[in-house]
Amino acid sequence: MPSIDLNADCGESFGAWRMGDDATLMPLLSSVNLACGGHAGDPATLRASIRLAQQSGLAIGAHPSYPDLLGFGRRPMTMPTAELLAHVFAQIGGLAALCTVEGVRLSHVKAHGALYHTLSSDVALADAFVQALARFDAGLAIIGPPFGALAESASRHGLHYLREGFVERGYNEYGHLIARGQAGAELHNVEEICAQALALARGDQLSCAGVKLRLRVDTLCLHGDRENAVGIARAVRAALLQAGIEIMRP
Amino acid sequence: MPSIDLNADCGESFGAWRMGDDATLMPLLSSVNLACGGHAGDPATLRASIRLAQQSGLAIGAHPSYPDLLGFGRRPMTMPTAELLAHVFAQIGGLAALCTVEGVRLSHVKAHGALYHTLSSDVALADAFVQALARFDAGLAIIGPPFGALAESASRHGLHYLREGFVERGYNEYGHLIARGQAGAELHNVEEICAQALALARGDQLSCAGVKLRLRVDTLCLHGDRENAVGIARAVRAALLQAGIEIMRP
Amino acid sequence: MPSIDLNADCGESFGAWRMGDDATLMPLLSSVNLACGGHAGDPATLRASIRLAQQSGLAIGAHPSYPDLLGFGRRPMTMPTAELLAHVFAQIGGLAALCTVEGVRLSHVKAHGALYHTLSSDVALADAFVQALARFDAGLAIIGPPFGALAESASRHGLHYLREGFVERGYNEYGHLIARGQAGAELHNVEEICAQALALARGDQLSCAGVKLRLRVDTLCLHGDRENAVGIARAVRAALLQAGIEIMRP
Amino acid sequence: MPSIDLNADCGESFGAWRMGDDATLMPLLSSVNLACGGHAGDPATLRASIRLAQQSGLAIGAHPSYPDLLGFGRRPMTMPTAELLAHVFAQIGGLAALCTVEGVRLSHVKAHGALYHTLSSDVALADAFVQALARFDAGLAIIGPPFGALAESASRHGLHYLREGFVERGYNEYGHLIARGQAGAELHNVEEICAQALALARGDQLSCAGVKLRLRVDTLCLHGDRENAVGIARAVRAALLQAGIEIMRP
Repeated sequence: MPSIDLNADCGESFGAWRMGDDATLMPLLSSVNLACGGHAGDPATLRASIRLAQQSGLAIGAHPSYPDLLGFGRRPMTMPTAELLAHVFAQIGGLAALCTVEGVRLSHVKAHGALYHTLSSDVALADAFVQALARFDAGLAIIGPPFGALAESASRHGLHYLREGFVERGYNEYGHLIARGQAGAELHNVEEICAQALALARGDQLSCAGVKLRLRVDTLCLHGDRENAVGIARAVRAALLQAGIEIMRP
Repeated sequence: MPSIDLNADCGESFGAWRMGDDATLMPLLSSVNLACGGHAGDPATLRASIRLAQQSGLAIGAHPSYPDLLGFGRRPMTMPTAELLAHVFAQIGGLAALCTVEGVRLSHVKAHGALYHTLSSDVALADAFVQALARFDAGLAIIGPPFGALAESASRHGLHYLREGFVERGYNEYGHLIARGQAGAELHNVEEICAQALALARGDQLSCAGVKLRLRVDTLCLHGDRENAVGIARAVRAALLQAGIEIMRP
Repeated sequence: MPSIDLNADCGESFGAWRMGDDATLMPLLSSVNLACGGHAGDPATLRASIRLAQQSGLAIGAHPSYPDLLGFGRRPMTMPTAELLAHVFAQIGGLAALCTVEGVRLSHVKAHGALYHTLSSDVALADAFVQALARFDAGLAIIGPPFGALAESASRHGLHYLREGFVERGYNEYGHLIARGQAGAELHNVEEICAQALALARGDQLSCAGVKLRLRVDTLCLHGDRENAVGIARAVRAALLQAGIEIMRP
Repeated sequence: MPSIDLNADCGESFGAWRMGDDATLMPLLSSVNLACGGHAGDPATLRASIRLAQQSGLAIGAHPSYPDLLGFGRRPMTMPTAELLAHVFAQIGGLAALCTVEGVRLSHVKAHGALYHTLSSDVALADAFVQALARFDAGLAIIGPPFGALAESASRHGLHYLREGFVERGYNEYGHLIARGQAGAELHNVEEICAQALALARGDQLSCAGVKLRLRVDTLCLHGDRENAVGIARAVRAALLQAGIEIMRP
């Protein structure tokens, strides 16, 4: 029976501010990427998120970011690679420690926001990140775009790489995500979202800005902070199961 | 040959702001406690500090704090134990990850500032901290005061505990540190400091606010951020060696 | 025709995190207290909040706090008075400047959270605050509890003081707010809330933990971040108008 | 008798971290630009800096920055103009309020670090900043480079503009500062620094990367955080006085 991982970014509250309905969303997933203080996620939030993820038996990943709470990690920052990686591994390590204290192991890492995009296009940074990750824990998988600098670097250094597809985001004719704020960046129709989820899960042809592409992916990402996030998660889940695709952590 | 550990708190710079002359001080020590973002120590500072500590072959410890950069961790904060420990272990884990990436292992944990004092007097907090530390890594030693809640809790849960003496701080008649800002809180005379270092290292009688006490300690702390910190470190080191006491990481 | 001011705390979003539905709530008020960075309210949020308040013709006040984003200003902090007041006036001044740039004047100041309570009970702090406020702008009104240190200090130094009543919070037998988390701290029933609003606006007897008290107030506070905040605001407004009480900025 | 203003950036400490020796430097100046929380300068530091500046009778200016404590405001940040200006005026307003409480008026504004450079080259941003400043307080002077977008914008909108020369920084053949980190960016020799100070103060020809230029300036900037800052300040001051140039706030 074919299977696919279903992930979402959670743990994105901060202090008194809530983001997303993690307690409702998590039981619908197989993996979760937890903010680790760079763009969101204070330690108390992280601890609560780890416990929620454990209750649902999810694979727990770290979701590090440029250090930019005010910009929610969506603004690229110019800093030396060594400094950036120090931030990234301090974040990953903080989450990993909280996991260890709770008796669960980290399973993967997925960069957040602007860092997700920089790592996909900057070969030198991707290599430095992958090599540091291998030194930190070579058993961790990396989640990232289906192709690009990070996928290649992970392959070159022998780390397990999970190609990710977004069920609610539009792709351009090169198979890249259409940037937020541009036309077609987000899918709003639930049927359309479910159809994209199925095409990504099966490796079927997908209409990307008018061009038909096949994007093979290992994991599907849902956005927990969008309107009707839970409704969409339920619909995507149902569509996958009905198509005979098991939802399974990697 | 008798021996003692010589530790200092380092890595306390933040961004463009320097504190202490770590590069000169570290070669004079056997252990170092590195700030991990709670009261000081941004990730780039931590990475540089780990590399310096490695060059001198020091035992590296984490120096977690209440989350209070502006107050340098010197103000006690009221927060639930679970929230406080989440901060503490996120900090420890961040430093531990940077150590792992650099190929070195964390050897101990020593709380900073107000948290050092709270852990020595709050039995419930000390127990919760020690139990969480045992889950995180039962091989880590704890540095703390020669007696009190933390020492007892470590003993109760079987963690290795290093009793710490301060060579430049005055002790009151109960063997507690005289609080900063009070008369006698700091020793300024280098001969006096060396004499206190020797008394602590040998377990000799020490004059504590007029009373003679024996404080048995396993590690001596020097303050890296005080005036003439390097001069004092050299003098203490020379005094110990001359008295036939080896300076050795625990 | 009798009148009363209706205020709420707004501008409490931070970066990507939303709190409260300011755009819907503000048209129902006559005054608004805007967070100014201490517990919430980044500068872009403040600017947007000022513009919303202008559109509704509200009196705009500053809502300074202990500097504690992570704790949302609800934790008392120990710091010297001069340091605390420096934080408070840097916050007030930041908001005042944004108001000036938008062509509107600040009309009042109301402390937030833990600082609201400290100022009501610490006479020395209340005096220092009121004197500094008089130096900053003696035309600003102060919003605070109907009695206590701040009310007395404002009276002593000749500043305009607006006694505040909370329509959704329970009062104890001394006329103090019942602390959050304790039984009776919050009123949930809309009819009960409207009845309390009327009693406070008219200076009628109010049942305070079984005792009948009269709390004379000049302004009524609604909470914008609670469930059904907008529904409650509409009901309170309707009840006041129906009772012939005009809602008017002070 | 010819005169020139002598300014430096002060108030750049943060919490427990010191930067510069403001108490010694300020009496040697006629103006001071105080950090206001963007890149440095917590409120308690600001209050102390204002008091020091008052004691020396200095003109006090605000020194706003991109909101980037960790990068000390030296990294350009990408954010919408309205958001950036909200940060800048919240900072200026915070300092202005602390000045008002201390009984002194702000006299000028000088952007810090990366923002200083962006404002000199981005015409739209410079215009938006100058217009907002005019709305905030049209009596404030602006300190900036001798020519470029900011100088032109200030002239266009009728604000008082003070052209600034740096006594310790090298200039390229276009009269722009050589970027930090590049060859010739900093002058180290005290005689050379004094000669440059005199040339800038008199509008004499100055050797700029081999080309002779005349840079007419109204104020000379000294750096308070460099090595031997106080020694250089004394030498520059003596050289100016000996040449018959009075040091006078604008």
